[in-house]
Amino acid sequence: MTPVSIYPVPGLPEIGRDAPLANLILEGINALGMSLEAGDVVVITQKVISKAEGQVRRLDAVRPSARAKEIASRIAYDPRHVEVILSESVRVVREAPRVLITETRHGFVCANAGVDRSNTGGVELVVLLPERPDESAQRLREALVTASGVEIGVVISDSFGRPWREGQVNVAIGAAGVVALRDYRGDRDPDGYQLQGTELGVVDEIASAGELVMGKLDRVPVALIRGAAVSGDGRVHDLLRDPATDLFR
Amino acid sequence: MTPVSIYPVPGLPEIGRDAPLANLILEGINALGMSLEAGDVVVITQKVISKAEGQVRRLDAVRPSARAKEIASRIAYDPRHVEVILSESVRVVREAPRVLITETRHGFVCANAGVDRSNTGGVELVVLLPERPDESAQRLREALVTASGVEIGVVISDSFGRPWREGQVNVAIGAAGVVALRDYRGDRDPDGYQLQGTELGVVDEIASAGELVMGKLDRVPVALIRGAAVSGDGRVHDLLRDPATDLFR
Repeated sequence: MTPVSIYPVPGLPEIGRDAPLANLILEGINALGMSLEAGDVVVITQKVISKAEGQVRRLDAVRPSARAKEIASRIAYDPRHVEVILSESVRVVREAPRVLITETRHGFVCANAGVDRSNTGGVELVVLLPERPDESAQRLREALVTASGVEIGVVISDSFGRPWREGQVNVAIGAAGVVALRDYRGDRDPDGYQLQGTELGVVDEIASAGELVMGKLDRVPVALIRGAAVSGDGRVHDLLRDPATDLFR
Repeated sequence: MTPVSIYPVPGLPEIGRDAPLANLILEGINALGMSLEAGDVVVITQKVISKAEGQVRRLDAVRPSARAKEIASRIAYDPRHVEVILSESVRVVREAPRVLITETRHGFVCANAGVDRSNTGGVELVVLLPERPDESAQRLREALVTASGVEIGVVISDSFGRPWREGQVNVAIGAAGVVALRDYRGDRDPDGYQLQGTELGVVDEIASAGELVMGKLDRVPVALIRGAAVSGDGRVHDLLRDPATDLFR
């Protein structure tokens, strides 16, 4: 039985704007003594994509608005950080001391709109999410397919917290060439009982699986997943719940 | 570089009460031409554990209370199913047409208190969650360690929905012999910036990774994960958020 295998891809340097990510990833895979095969999935952390796209801001150039100062004062945050978070958000979902959960322009609900101060090439910088992460994944996929000659998938991952459970988990924020949702509704179990409401967020499970070889601190920002049988044409945008029917917004 | 490998474990029959799960799992692993090695993790779906523990109820023996009938009428559910859900719950978190999200006796927040009608050995049966899933995992772990002579981990998984995103994902409801939360707080990134609030729910990522080889409908209810370096002594109970500080309860 062929397993699903997850390889940490080594060797990516500190990433700057317009870094040739596809080439760097292929070099890392070569360093493993491997090459891309059809059906492989490359999982890459959001921070690498964002840096390559120039989604980095200097905090000392940010002028916080009155609203940012007010929220920052209530939750004990840097008002410049809050300003950038608000600029990336369409609404604040929850605030509490040291916690700011917003809905981003993309439709993600997450802490700090995904705007991260850690591991940025400088303490006074922040890294934003990519502007259109599904398109970022598609561009990287096309570059990898062109360079390798095989059809593969790309998943851009980020660590999000969730209600009710401690601990962040890796979820997908962008994808290309993979299934996003797998729909079992209408299937019947072995006893003939029709499954109700069973859709699996496969693309998020791929992102979580990738994290098992990544470690935090982005020292291994790329994972290669082989054998998962998840080829498809899903987008992460497809699994964002309609705010009008969301029970927790 | 050794990858993390995830194998679907074949051959588990329909599981009845007191089924010898450890032996059946070891036979399935043998059928792969493999044997357990130190550090392996066995991921097993909740339904198999629950059936082996007799956590099955006949709906025709359930007398719904007035409250169950009232909720069932509002949300268009079977009142007997609602009765069982309420009996497993400490509070209703949200209700909507065809949706009932509760906090279970264990502290999980999930649809239907995890009480599932599909794939139960008969349409008129429901399967409840294990009474104490961390202890269930620990018992299975001890049986596997005794039989195999190597230290391994066990994760009991179930598919939970989540706010904001369509699609269920596999999460852990019980665990033994593995890390549950991995704490990066206090670590510093390569630029010396101290990471804040970064804990990873590793045990849930293990459960999600296992799902990649399982398929729904429980046709492959066991996965073997090798090479993940997640040995530890965590429990799923450790990552249930304190309801008093939860922003979404």
